[in-house]
Amino acid sequence: MSDFDDETRLRPDGEHAFAGHVHPYWNIGDNPNGGYLLALAVAGLRQALPAHPDPLSVTVHFLRPGLSDRPCRVDVQVLRAGRTLSTGRATLSQDGVPRLEVLAAMGELSAGAELTLALPAPEMPPPELCTPRSGAEQGVSLPILDRLDIRLHPDEARAGTAGKAQVTGWIRFHDGRPPDAVASLLFVDAFPPAVFGLLGAIGWVPTIELTVHLRRRPAPGWTLGQFRTHDLIDGRLVEDGILWDADGKLVAQSRQLALVRRGERKS
Amino acid sequence: MSDFDDETRLRPDGEHAFAGHVHPYWNIGDNPNGGYLLALAVAGLRQALPAHPDPLSVTVHFLRPGLSDRPCRVDVQVLRAGRTLSTGRATLSQDGVPRLEVLAAMGELSAGAELTLALPAPEMPPPELCTPRSGAEQGVSLPILDRLDIRLHPDEARAGTAGKAQVTGWIRFHDGRPPDAVASLLFVDAFPPAVFGLLGAIGWVPTIELTVHLRRRPAPGWTLGQFRTHDLIDGRLVEDGILWDADGKLVAQSRQLALVRRGERKS
Repeated sequence: MSDFDDETRLRPDGEHAFAGHVHPYWNIGDNPNGGYLLALAVAGLRQALPAHPDPLSVTVHFLRPGLSDRPCRVDVQVLRAGRTLSTGRATLSQDGVPRLEVLAAMGELSAGAELTLALPAPEMPPPELCTPRSGAEQGVSLPILDRLDIRLHPDEARAGTAGKAQVTGWIRFHDGRPPDAVASLLFVDAFPPAVFGLLGAIGWVPTIELTVHLRRRPAPGWTLGQFRTHDLIDGRLVEDGILWDADGKLVAQSRQLALVRRGERKS
Repeated sequence: MSDFDDETRLRPDGEHAFAGHVHPYWNIGDNPNGGYLLALAVAGLRQALPAHPDPLSVTVHFLRPGLSDRPCRVDVQVLRAGRTLSTGRATLSQDGVPRLEVLAAMGELSAGAELTLALPAPEMPPPELCTPRSGAEQGVSLPILDRLDIRLHPDEARAGTAGKAQVTGWIRFHDGRPPDAVASLLFVDAFPPAVFGLLGAIGWVPTIELTVHLRRRPAPGWTLGQFRTHDLIDGRLVEDGILWDADGKLVAQSRQLALVRRGERKS
């Protein structure tokens, strides 16, 4: 079993309730990565809705930070069980306090496409010519990088040098686990914030909300991600992301609302 | 009072519960428009969270069609009440059956921006040179067009002629009500599906889920919207939208997952 599958495993603990553990190996600094916590919550939805294993549209609101290396509980409510898709909510709690609220449409993805119109993968140097992600210049340890192999575009790898709010990079699991729809939920939240490319490493950019639209089961191999921020208003930014699989096919689109706390920056 | 404010009014009916009416004036054919139903649900969130009147990020899952000209009930659950933003869910029910499930971050929008990077408004002929939206070629009546004045780009106004899955147009209330954040929730769901531009009027394209990120309080006057679909997989499409205000400033970004039922098309 892969690390990711092992460390997002839930056991039934009541009707539509599940128990698990937030492992410390997916931390950003001292905090569990949001995409990892989301994968835990979605594991509960997958168990409650076995006919519809793939997330099609997932929204998560991060109510409070997760607690690393502590138990968690996922409560699922099925809002509608349909033939081709089902809708459910999941609440991930720790210490009895809700941390994540998730609302998702679940169904079944195929590898195919009837009609592809746009959003081609960008030109990108191969992974071996890219720069491994590092936490050094953010001044935080990134345990998650022992789980995820992330290679950034050389022009965008150092905060404040891209000249634009964009980051592009390759991503895969270190242990060779192939990507799937649940992995995409993790991958869209595992890159440095795109705004770092423009403003430098401005510290923690906490996510308020993340929505991911899953389009296709990815081909095995590296996944390519590109993330952009279009504006910054009242200390809030929106970051748009796209994932493509190793065949260059569109896998997922993501959008997140996040806070910029420049006033709290140490500089 | 404007039609929109009058027809999205809710009265308290228990703790964090509200009662209203789904008016028939916002119909697409026989069905209430999804954006209108969303505005009703968000009215409940606004009443339950008076310190945070503006939606910042709103996700709605359409569980079942709404019922036109019938009472509705909105139940709100406050998931987190914070200083600068609060998170809540709202369920809109009719005849005791949940129709919409909404998850939203509420806060306060300003008219300003610290940093604008991208997403400029496209070139667009003025409203008087554009084509009023009509339901004729879709073969449905559109009562909503007595409430909303929608003018489409002349090259994209007739289904199947744009040569791409894109629709661009101006929108405003007929009665002169100025736009605001709640109106943006309605506006992003009031245009013909972008896929019509490529495939023709292929019938009802029911929305499964819609997420809107609100960026700014719009300036008075016309709002400009542009909507695109990038692919069609397994009968599901994603439509991305952007709204700009009369000053050309970014107001909202939207994304929806919708079904294409070409097998059910009468042709």
